[in-house]
Amino acid sequence: VRPDGALVDTPAPGIYLYPGHVETVVHGLGQALTTLLGTDLQRSLRTPPVIARSIIERAGYHESFPHLLGRVTTQAGSGMPAESDLVLLPAGCYCVYPLYADTRLTSATELSVEATCFRQEGSAEMGRLRSFRMREFVWIGPGEQCLSWRDRCLSAVRGWLTDLGLTTETAVASDPFFGAGSRLIRQLQIEQGLKIEILATVGKGQIQAVASGNYHKDQFGRLFAIFDHTGNITHSACLAFGYERLVLALIHRHGDDPNRWPGRVRDMLRLGALA
Amino acid sequence: VRPDGALVDTPAPGIYLYPGHVETVVHGLGQALTTLLGTDLQRSLRTPPVIARSIIERAGYHESFPHLLGRVTTQAGSGMPAESDLVLLPAGCYCVYPLYADTRLTSATELSVEATCFRQEGSAEMGRLRSFRMREFVWIGPGEQCLSWRDRCLSAVRGWLTDLGLTTETAVASDPFFGAGSRLIRQLQIEQGLKIEILATVGKGQIQAVASGNYHKDQFGRLFAIFDHTGNITHSACLAFGYERLVLALIHRHGDDPNRWPGRVRDMLRLGALA
Repeated sequence: VRPDGALVDTPAPGIYLYPGHVETVVHGLGQALTTLLGTDLQRSLRTPPVIARSIIERAGYHESFPHLLGRVTTQAGSGMPAESDLVLLPAGCYCVYPLYADTRLTSATELSVEATCFRQEGSAEMGRLRSFRMREFVWIGPGEQCLSWRDRCLSAVRGWLTDLGLTTETAVASDPFFGAGSRLIRQLQIEQGLKIEILATVGKGQIQAVASGNYHKDQFGRLFAIFDHTGNITHSACLAFGYERLVLALIHRHGDDPNRWPGRVRDMLRLGALA
Repeated sequence: VRPDGALVDTPAPGIYLYPGHVETVVHGLGQALTTLLGTDLQRSLRTPPVIARSIIERAGYHESFPHLLGRVTTQAGSGMPAESDLVLLPAGCYCVYPLYADTRLTSATELSVEATCFRQEGSAEMGRLRSFRMREFVWIGPGEQCLSWRDRCLSAVRGWLTDLGLTTETAVASDPFFGAGSRLIRQLQIEQGLKIEILATVGKGQIQAVASGNYHKDQFGRLFAIFDHTGNITHSACLAFGYERLVLALIHRHGDDPNRWPGRVRDMLRLGALA
């Protein structure tokens, strides 16, 4: 059973409407994350929920995750609907790499992206949304710095979530940005610890990843021909947050009504004006 | 030429990224609109950018505007991509009517909707976006009240835009929510004044509708079987705002940098924390 009033059902599974008090919490989470991780940002961007298909094809997502990708078809004149130049955005950071494609960075770059993402999930249990909002911090630069940036961020995020009253654990996951691959490749990715998820309880008996820290190695640098200041293919990393899952986790922990959440949590999310 | 840095180009025409200072203005516009028109809201909702295809078909949008509709296809297993249960949302208020479908309202209802909409526009001049954000206020109730609500709102909005420094004009438009129809039907809709647009300059030589007030008569009440408290099919009306166009109009009027906009405008949009 979904927390009262946090998500409003629609006829489509995994697609929900969000009431005003949820939006207030989402906005507060966004502000708090900027304070936590966004102090050195070169750019802060919002991306629309659709993206050029050419970008997703360059990234190889359509081959790695054909079952998750939503494609947009449109109808010209009186013809049949045909594949358009757009697909639904599967993750925020795909809008970032094209901005630096075929260039050499003069220094490491950190960006923030706000996105609404889509994945054609096969199930719709609590917290499993097909359309969901993602905040990402993306770091583009030399490899060893990527990894230490990611791990510093993960540590800060776990502390922040604890301060918000949430009990979290971390798990090394096999890595969706490298494609399904063989069992052996997935095992190798797990051993390298490229994707670390922060898990929290988002509903009774439902534990989901509310954030993840990902080290892409040179995957996106190579695909988009981005070079670091030394002339090498750049590496990249990102920290990603699922806004709806964070809200569900907070509601599961503190109750349906943000007005009655602990003062410390309300302060951290700047909910003062709610009452 | 697009104002420096207000919209960031992507490879897809009519699809842009939005930098942080634009987002701050969008948030301020949203808050100001709630203060202006949202004092009697029964509900405030955000909707995802996709919606059940069944809703759009019940509304008849796919027949009236097949050329504007974006359909979502997905691929199950190893098959070819096939039409899914989702389409891209063409206007915010379509998520509202299903909430009241097949019911009798006990009183008139006013709602606010935040939405990201999609229309497959055939051109991409300044302010003509394929993916854009819309704020809507929706009023559902008896017909004569709908019309007076709409006209009171339109008047308040024009005053507010004037206070923001914008020069606006109004125009009666032929009505997209009734479908393309014949020339005669469009003429009749214009004579009835069902759709009134508020126009502003969004770029050099580019005048676009930044808001519109629409009286739907019993169109949506009939399609979704919504009855008013007297037992009649309900009427409805909405006020719709295009966030990106409002930002472009403000930039055209006051310059690229919101930090240098007039104090009165910055106060109205609560931009105090920007500097």
